[in-house]
Amino acid sequence: MGIERGQYVLLYHSESAKYLVSFIPNKALHTHLGIVELREDLEFGDVIKSSKGKLFYVLRPSTSDISMKVRRTTTIIYPKDAGWMILEAGVGAGSKVIEVGTGSGALTIILAKIVGPNGKVYSFERRPEFLENAKQNVEKAGLAEIVHFELRDPAVDGFGVKDADAIFVDVPEPWTLAQAAHDALAGGAAWVSLSPQIEQVKSTFEALRGAGFVRLKCVEILEREMLVRDVGTRPKERMVSHTGYLVSARKVKNA
Amino acid sequence: MGIERGQYVLLYHSESAKYLVSFIPNKALHTHLGIVELREDLEFGDVIKSSKGKLFYVLRPSTSDISMKVRRTTTIIYPKDAGWMILEAGVGAGSKVIEVGTGSGALTIILAKIVGPNGKVYSFERRPEFLENAKQNVEKAGLAEIVHFELRDPAVDGFGVKDADAIFVDVPEPWTLAQAAHDALAGGAAWVSLSPQIEQVKSTFEALRGAGFVRLKCVEILEREMLVRDVGTRPKERMVSHTGYLVSARKVKNA
Amino acid sequence: MGIERGQYVLLYHSESAKYLVSFIPNKALHTHLGIVELREDLEFGDVIKSSKGKLFYVLRPSTSDISMKVRRTTTIIYPKDAGWMILEAGVGAGSKVIEVGTGSGALTIILAKIVGPNGKVYSFERRPEFLENAKQNVEKAGLAEIVHFELRDPAVDGFGVKDADAIFVDVPEPWTLAQAAHDALAGGAAWVSLSPQIEQVKSTFEALRGAGFVRLKCVEILEREMLVRDVGTRPKERMVSHTGYLVSARKVKNA
Amino acid sequence: MGIERGQYVLLYHSESAKYLVSFIPNKALHTHLGIVELREDLEFGDVIKSSKGKLFYVLRPSTSDISMKVRRTTTIIYPKDAGWMILEAGVGAGSKVIEVGTGSGALTIILAKIVGPNGKVYSFERRPEFLENAKQNVEKAGLAEIVHFELRDPAVDGFGVKDADAIFVDVPEPWTLAQAAHDALAGGAAWVSLSPQIEQVKSTFEALRGAGFVRLKCVEILEREMLVRDVGTRPKERMVSHTGYLVSARKVKNA
Repeated sequence: MGIERGQYVLLYHSESAKYLVSFIPNKALHTHLGIVELREDLEFGDVIKSSKGKLFYVLRPSTSDISMKVRRTTTIIYPKDAGWMILEAGVGAGSKVIEVGTGSGALTIILAKIVGPNGKVYSFERRPEFLENAKQNVEKAGLAEIVHFELRDPAVDGFGVKDADAIFVDVPEPWTLAQAAHDALAGGAAWVSLSPQIEQVKSTFEALRGAGFVRLKCVEILEREMLVRDVGTRPKERMVSHTGYLVSARKVKNA
Repeated sequence: MGIERGQYVLLYHSESAKYLVSFIPNKALHTHLGIVELREDLEFGDVIKSSKGKLFYVLRPSTSDISMKVRRTTTIIYPKDAGWMILEAGVGAGSKVIEVGTGSGALTIILAKIVGPNGKVYSFERRPEFLENAKQNVEKAGLAEIVHFELRDPAVDGFGVKDADAIFVDVPEPWTLAQAAHDALAGGAAWVSLSPQIEQVKSTFEALRGAGFVRLKCVEILEREMLVRDVGTRPKERMVSHTGYLVSARKVKNA
Repeated sequence: MGIERGQYVLLYHSESAKYLVSFIPNKALHTHLGIVELREDLEFGDVIKSSKGKLFYVLRPSTSDISMKVRRTTTIIYPKDAGWMILEAGVGAGSKVIEVGTGSGALTIILAKIVGPNGKVYSFERRPEFLENAKQNVEKAGLAEIVHFELRDPAVDGFGVKDADAIFVDVPEPWTLAQAAHDALAGGAAWVSLSPQIEQVKSTFEALRGAGFVRLKCVEILEREMLVRDVGTRPKERMVSHTGYLVSARKVKNA
Repeated sequence: MGIERGQYVLLYHSESAKYLVSFIPNKALHTHLGIVELREDLEFGDVIKSSKGKLFYVLRPSTSDISMKVRRTTTIIYPKDAGWMILEAGVGAGSKVIEVGTGSGALTIILAKIVGPNGKVYSFERRPEFLENAKQNVEKAGLAEIVHFELRDPAVDGFGVKDADAIFVDVPEPWTLAQAAHDALAGGAAWVSLSPQIEQVKSTFEALRGAGFVRLKCVEILEREMLVRDVGTRPKERMVSHTGYLVSARKVKNA
C-alpha cells in the first residue's frame, strides 16, 4: 500500500529530529542527519537510512503531530486541550462546528479530521494574513473540503450559521461572542473556549450567563511526561505548566 | 426540531443532579427534586420545571457525559485521557480502530462517535458478562452499527484484523498484546494504552520495543477544575490525582 | 531514655488509626483497635500490642503530625505550605516572627518549633475563643514559652513590634495589614501570606506595592502521594488540589 | 542597624538580576546593570542606584536564596522539597540531625539555619572535593559552627552518631544506608530521603522495611508560580516538573 502524492508523512528519527513532509516520490529531504530519499515505493512503517547512515521511521503523523507542526502566525491550541474540548463538546464524525478565530489553523485541522467529510467546520478569522496561512496549512493536511473559511468579525456581524453542534472559541475577548454564539448554536449545544488569563475567564462566565448559557465549567489540563528508561523511571524535569483555562457551557433557550 | 424517540437527553439541574435518559415521549422521570415530564414536543435547550418547581435544562449530552454515565462493570477511561489518546493516535471520521478490552464500553462509545458510520470500531473482550453490558451501553447511545464486538482473547488468538489505523488498549497486561497488535496495525500506525501502575508501563515498553514499535512515549494527564464564583476564584479543593499512565508507540516493519 | 510526663507521643497503627497523646504514665488509651496501655517505662521506638492484639508503634510526632492534629476552630495551614513559607521567609532558630491570625495555632506550633527558645513568635488574633483554643494547643505541644499571644486587631492598632524577621499572614483580608506589617518588619525582611482565592492575591499584591514592599511572588504548592506497593507503584487516586495561593514580598524603606 | 562585615546581602533588581554577596564595606560590585557601591552605612531595606541608574534593593536573603545560590558541584535540593522534609522530620531549633551526602551544602545550610547554635548538623560526604566546596559554602553563610563535617562512607563505617533526631539522605543509593541510619537514630525518629527515580524509591522502601522502619511514605512536591500582573493573572508557562520523590519513615526497635 503505497503513499499518495501530497500525503503527509512523518519522517522520525527522534523527538528532536522529526520532519512532517508532503510526500513527493523520489524527492530528497536534506536534514542535519543527512539526506533522506523518498523512494516512490515508500510505505508507512518503513525503516530507511539517511546518507549519513541514520535511521528514519516512516510514520503516519498523528493529529497532534500535524497540529503542532503547522506554520504558526499565532500561539496554537495544544492537543491536551483540544482533546478535552472535543469530548466536552460532544463533537464526532458528521458534526457541524464553528471555530473562531482560525489563527494558524491548528485546531481547524484537528476539528476537520474529527468531523470528516460528512461534517463541516465553519472557521472565522478577522485578520486576512492569518486566514491565508491557515488555509494553506489546512490544504496541506488534505482537509480543505471540510472547512469553510470566512474573513469576518462575528462579534459585529454574527456567524451567519444556525443550529451548530458546538462552537470552539480561541480569541482574546471571548465574552464579545457570547450572544452571537447563542444565536448560532442548536438548543442544548456546547460552547468551549480557551483563555490564558483568569480575568478573561471571569468576563467570559459573566457574558455566557447573560446570553443564556448554563452549566458553566472551567478546567485546566496538565500533561506530564514520564521518562521510562533502563537507567530509571521518573517524570521529565521540566514541563509546560500553563497553556490556558478551558471554559465550557451549554445553550438554553431564553425565557 | 423535536427529539427522536430513544435519543439520549441530559436533564440537568446541577452537577449533582443530572440525568442521562433515552427520550420516550410523555414519560415521567422521578427524581429527588420532583417529577420531570418529558413532553412529546420537548426540544434541546428547553428549560422545564419539576413537580417541585426545580429548573431542569434539556441538554445534548457531551461525549464525556455519555461515557461517564454508562452502567459500569469495570473502571472506565476518563475523557481527559481519551481525548489525548484520540489525537495521539490520529483517529478521526472514517478511521478503522481496534479496542481491547471493551470493559463497560465507555471508550467504545467515545471511539464510535469519533470514527462515525464510515469508520469501524473492533472491540474485543474476554469476559462475556462485560461484553453483554457494554453492548447494551453502546446500543443505548445509538452507535451499535459502528461497533463490531468480539468475545475473544487476542493475546492467544490474535485480532483477526489487518491494517487498523490505531489500537486502544485497556487491559491489565498490555504487554501480552504487543505482537498481535503489530500484526493488526497498518505500517506507521499507533498503539495507545492506559495502565494505572508504573510497573505495567515498564513491561509494556519492553514488549513494544521487542515487537517492532518505535517512538515510545508515556504521559499523565491531569484535569484540575477552577471554581469561578462571585465570592472568589480558586481551584477546587480536591481532584482526581491519578487514573493511569498513557503509553503511545508506532509500528514499524520488522527487518 | 524514658518519655516525660506530658510529652507528645504518636501511637501509630496506620494512617487511619493514629493517636497523638500527651504521655501520662500507666494511662490506658481506648481505641477502636483495643485498649493501649502506656506503661511508665515506655520509650520512643517501642512496638506495643493493644488488648485486641493490634500492633502500635510509639513514634515521635513530626511537626506535621502535631500541626495537623490540633483541635481546630478554623481551617489550618498545611505542612506543604508552611515548609515553603519558612524557607522563603528565611526563618530559623532564634528568629523573631509575627503571626496573624492565630487561628487554631497549627502554624504557631510549627513556627515555635523552628525559632525555639532563643526566638519569639508574636501571634495575633481578634477572636477571643480562637485565641483560647490556640493557647491550649500550643501549651500541649510544650511550646508556650516561645509564643506571645495577643488579642488585637493589628489592622487598626498595629503590631506593637519592631524589627521582626518575618511576618506570616493568614487572615481573609491580608491587604488591610500591609502598612502595619511594613512598620513592624526589619529592613529587607519578608512578608508571607496564604489566601485561597485569586482575588485576595490581587488585592494583597496591590496593597504590598503601595506600602513599600518589593519582590512580590505568588506560588502554589501541590503535594502528591505515591503508593509504593508490592502490587504496583502509582500515585494515589485522589489528592488535595488546592489549599491556598502563597504570597511573599520584602520590605524596603519608603523614599 | 548596620550590616556586619561578611554577612550575606541580597542585592535585588529582578529575578534575573540578583546578587548574593558577603558584605564588605565600600566594596564595589560590578554587574551588567552598572556598578553598585556597598557604602559602609548600608542597611537592609535600602534602595540604591547603580552607576547606570538602575534600582537595587538591599534584602535579607531568604534561606531559599542562599541554598539556591551556593557554588554547585552537584544537583541540589530545592526549598519546596527541603521545607516538606523539615516538617515531616519534626526538626526545629536545637535538633541534632544527620545529613548524607553533603553535596554542595545547600541542604546543610538550610538545616543549620533551622537547628541553630543549640543544635547540630552531622554532615557526611565521600568525595573530598565536594566536602571542601560545601564547607566553604556553609562558612560563607556564617553557619560553620553548627555543622560537623565528616569525610566518610557511612554505608561501610556507620555514622558514629547515636540518638539523632532525624536523618536527611540525598545519595544515589539510599538503601545502602538503612541499617546504619537505624543504628544512628533515636527511637521513633525520622528518616527522610530524596531520589529522582521510582526504582530508587522501591529499593529504599524495601531496605527500610528490612532494617526496622515503619510508616513509610512517598510524596512529590510541585511548585507552580502564578504571574499576577496588570495585564492579567495566570500560571507561569513553564515549571520544574520533577526534582525527586521524597521518602519518609520512622525507626522502631527491632524485636
